Amino acid sequence: MSEPLRGIIPPLITPLKDRDTLDREGLERLVEHLIKGGVSGLFVLGTTGEGPSLSYRLRRELIEHTCKLTKGRVPVLVGITDTSFTESVNLARYSAEAGATHVVLAPPYYFPAAPPEMLEYVQDLVTEMPLPLFLYNMPGLTKVSFETDLVRRALDMPGVCGVKDSSCDMIYFHRLIEVAKQRPDWSVLVGPEELTAEAVLLGGHGGINGGANLHPELYVKMYQAAATQDLQRTRELHAEVMRLAGSIYTVGRHKSAIIKGIKCALSILGICEDHMAEPFHRFRDAERGIIRERLVNLGLIS
Amino acid sequence: MSEPLRGIIPPLITPLKDRDTLDREGLERLVEHLIKGGVSGLFVLGTTGEGPSLSYRLRRELIEHTCKLTKGRVPVLVGITDTSFTESVNLARYSAEAGATHVVLAPPYYFPAAPPEMLEYVQDLVTEMPLPLFLYNMPGLTKVSFETDLVRRALDMPGVCGVKDSSCDMIYFHRLIEVAKQRPDWSVLVGPEELTAEAVLLGGHGGINGGANLHPELYVKMYQAAATQDLQRTRELHAEVMRLAGSIYTVGRHKSAIIKGIKCALSILGICEDHMAEPFHRFRDAERGIIRERLVNLGLIS
Amino acid sequence: MSEPLRGIIPPLITPLKDRDTLDREGLERLVEHLIKGGVSGLFVLGTTGEGPSLSYRLRRELIEHTCKLTKGRVPVLVGITDTSFTESVNLARYSAEAGATHVVLAPPYYFPAAPPEMLEYVQDLVTEMPLPLFLYNMPGLTKVSFETDLVRRALDMPGVCGVKDSSCDMIYFHRLIEVAKQRPDWSVLVGPEELTAEAVLLGGHGGINGGANLHPELYVKMYQAAATQDLQRTRELHAEVMRLAGSIYTVGRHKSAIIKGIKCALSILGICEDHMAEPFHRFRDAERGIIRERLVNLGLIS
Amino acid sequence: MSEPLRGIIPPLITPLKDRDTLDREGLERLVEHLIKGGVSGLFVLGTTGEGPSLSYRLRRELIEHTCKLTKGRVPVLVGITDTSFTESVNLARYSAEAGATHVVLAPPYYFPAAPPEMLEYVQDLVTEMPLPLFLYNMPGLTKVSFETDLVRRALDMPGVCGVKDSSCDMIYFHRLIEVAKQRPDWSVLVGPEELTAEAVLLGGHGGINGGANLHPELYVKMYQAAATQDLQRTRELHAEVMRLAGSIYTVGRHKSAIIKGIKCALSILGICEDHMAEPFHRFRDAERGIIRERLVNLGLIS
Repeated sequence: MSEPLRGIIPPLITPLKDRDTLDREGLERLVEHLIKGGVSGLFVLGTTGEGPSLSYRLRRELIEHTCKLTKGRVPVLVGITDTSFTESVNLARYSAEAGATHVVLAPPYYFPAAPPEMLEYVQDLVTEMPLPLFLYNMPGLTKVSFETDLVRRALDMPGVCGVKDSSCDMIYFHRLIEVAKQRPDWSVLVGPEELTAEAVLLGGHGGINGGANLHPELYVKMYQAAATQDLQRTRELHAEVMRLAGSIYTVGRHKSAIIKGIKCALSILGICEDHMAEPFHRFRDAERGIIRERLVNLGLIS
Repeated sequence: MSEPLRGIIPPLITPLKDRDTLDREGLERLVEHLIKGGVSGLFVLGTTGEGPSLSYRLRRELIEHTCKLTKGRVPVLVGITDTSFTESVNLARYSAEAGATHVVLAPPYYFPAAPPEMLEYVQDLVTEMPLPLFLYNMPGLTKVSFETDLVRRALDMPGVCGVKDSSCDMIYFHRLIEVAKQRPDWSVLVGPEELTAEAVLLGGHGGINGGANLHPELYVKMYQAAATQDLQRTRELHAEVMRLAGSIYTVGRHKSAIIKGIKCALSILGICEDHMAEPFHRFRDAERGIIRERLVNLGLIS
Repeated sequence: MSEPLRGIIPPLITPLKDRDTLDREGLERLVEHLIKGGVSGLFVLGTTGEGPSLSYRLRRELIEHTCKLTKGRVPVLVGITDTSFTESVNLARYSAEAGATHVVLAPPYYFPAAPPEMLEYVQDLVTEMPLPLFLYNMPGLTKVSFETDLVRRALDMPGVCGVKDSSCDMIYFHRLIEVAKQRPDWSVLVGPEELTAEAVLLGGHGGINGGANLHPELYVKMYQAAATQDLQRTRELHAEVMRLAGSIYTVGRHKSAIIKGIKCALSILGICEDHMAEPFHRFRDAERGIIRERLVNLGLIS
Repeated sequence: MSEPLRGIIPPLITPLKDRDTLDREGLERLVEHLIKGGVSGLFVLGTTGEGPSLSYRLRRELIEHTCKLTKGRVPVLVGITDTSFTESVNLARYSAEAGATHVVLAPPYYFPAAPPEMLEYVQDLVTEMPLPLFLYNMPGLTKVSFETDLVRRALDMPGVCGVKDSSCDMIYFHRLIEVAKQRPDWSVLVGPEELTAEAVLLGGHGGINGGANLHPELYVKMYQAAATQDLQRTRELHAEVMRLAGSIYTVGRHKSAIIKGIKCALSILGICEDHMAEPFHRFRDAERGIIRERLVNLGLIS
């Protein structure tokens, strides 16, 4: 039985030159920045990666390229969430052939499936998966959750290897931890970086944290402090993460501020371009100026 | 300046043999059933058509086939709603080449765009459209609306030809009617069939009603009664529509009961198969028995 | 068996001199303005009346005074909605003693009762009512609905005399009409004035419309046109109501804009003061200026 | 400057003989049970106490009695949340006269106040308070939050002494902790018991946890372990709390299951009666049997 994945696995933003053109040099710099920063894996085509906004052609290009650039140094996780079962299977197969190590699946997000429908959906899908699957709970965007009863049923599905939870509901997360105890190979990871400290202190395996795109070392150190039960250090690093999130994610008034902020900051850091796929557009000069100023205050640029 | 589309335009269910195989004979029977029933157009790949659940290959097959079977007898509208701008444009182009007459677009449904982001999205997309575009308001599934301010801005976009509203919010619908008065070529259509009578009585142009898959004549007669201001007849036919909806859409406890009910009933009527694409599955025998009984009560089978 | 209540029953705003002082002269002018305008009843302590924001002492004063001023010329309905069963019963008893004719009850609005809990609640409460009771569906503010199944059960409760629906969901409203056909003494009334035309055209008994505070004749005429099936006239008057609502309810960005707008306009019309009870405050000068301008445009002042 | 309140402050259920009769002997046993269990204060008329469901007469009786029974041994906090400003002030004054030490205020819960309206509301109310005030964030039941911007403004309001957060949103909670650092006399407390461990590990002052009604020692020990940074012990006790909550709060399908479960368990433990105020009723025999069994499994009865 394999070991669970542990640590910080950043959900990579997708470096773009325009809505349908990958910034390949940017992707290379980003991959090196993250691996150098000590991350435990790379997750592409998640929410932070604007997965659902990208064409299928571009998604395949990104998968292929990320695997090539990573060269097996860390696991590569690929988001295969889709409203179409067939397209999810297609993406999973492509990912396996390209050399990815895991796939990540949130509920189909147009029609909200009721719990028994969702269970049947997961059961059907798992049998078609060529790679271990993470269930990705993201009710804020998919409208429905993977309920803990479903997760309990998934303990018996050989293809499932864990859960990523981005619900912001730590009661749910603690229940996941309890459920997952029966599968010591499972990994229970948390999405929002503001919650990684407590998630790990109380039994979680790590974080899929957007801010780690920017400053992977900070998140890796926070994870390590929490994993080694160094509470004082965890609190300090958690406060730093709160400061980064409170600075970079709060420019502009829309929910898209988080992804826009990360992309803009990476562009200022010289790592990659900050184009976005619709329905979003990158920050204009005014917001970019504020992000730059905040990066200075955070000590990330001078 | 062209005339607005008026009348009943059914959102076709997608006849399937399995999750990724079109029931071509079923589609042919359905198209003939509807055109014979007097409908003013056919709308494929909408919500009732499980559009987002189908593979892109199947969506293209369905578009091509519907256009071929229709042979220009009525307009063919194609749903191009997608979380990816590029895939929406691809579908629109394919639709134009296949001979469709209009495209229909709901907001991208993974990331909720804020009003200014949505406006920019629509502006960008309209310039790429090879066919007239209906805005499709469906906040229950897309999380966000096309606000009336955006619709007002769309009056100046040459490619837009109307709005379909499935919000169930008749106050919003009445505001749409007011706004659209400035564009006499626009069509303002309502989704839920329970609301078509009042929509047309108070100035709307027709309905995109799921139940018209089953019994197109009923919906066409109700539309005509309302359009000719025959209030007594409208009330009688509205009561019949309420009875049909109350019978066929209320088997099973989940929100999917509407599409499942229509597909099951069409299968019992001998029109097409009732397979579904995940995350749904067709009704089992118990529910099928109830639907059959209700079709008898409605006088649709003996 | 009695006749159902029909027509326009305005939900009176509560004229206040400050948060806990009734503007008695204003109330008198308002009552005369409405009765002169042809309304079929007066409803105090509803949502528009800021019922839940008022002290119990003030609520009793308002009930007593309204009944005295009305002198039996029209029915007086009193909102007794409360999170406390005991306080609802207390208010109902006080209303009966003061000479009111009906009470109006929305679901308790702190704890959301599940359907079986709500049924038990209504069953318990009805037995304590000294006056006929309207069920008041207002899910936007009470979080839960009176489901149609509960309304069907209420057909057998002698004390219930109808439903007021402010859900803005006309599918629900049409189902209410169907259900209520078994109780010819029941009245099914709609809250939002934008929906009164279609509600009455398709079988409803009238409207409890906030805007009727301002211009009762308009609403009464619209009701009469719809009740006599004069469709052309109904459409014209509906368009006027839409214009009034679109003018007076859209100043300021918050949901409170409707009540604030009505109170401000009544104050400009010289009918009563426009103080409000917390959590709201009346419009300041800037908004008041806009309301005044719009009243001019509507022809309500010169 | 005073010290912040720290530790476990149970939100007392309200022992009832029927909807409007206090179980005084039960209240006495409950107060002794809790003080003996080491709690840092008693909070009456909160959500768990069914505050909004009780008549004002009963609320006053409960306040008076709790203060008398407590005899100053621990602080007594009183919930004064109300949709009527005037009634909130009345309750606060009564509480002060009765000997309570703090009042607790959630947003008015009928009309959702927008942020600027809420700020004005809090500013107005604070000036009328005879006792230090806790802001109580409970968006699941009040529909709106006390946003962090408002809390920041409240730092300058002398009458405010802290925040109780029951949003289940730990990102919000961590932001509260940051904000409150400027007021070393403030106390930031968390509602849901499943979150008390992490709240205290990362800087919070304690928990207002419903389950502490049942087993105060467990919650007090968990608080102390977290407050003294004994991580291993905190994890064990947190797991025990999760087990208690997972056992007692999951009988019955409705949201009311938590309060019903606590009351039923206290009745089985011989502490007080388990009547409830509408819209709820206590568990029937079937559910009571399950609760009894689970209390055995938890080792709370034999």
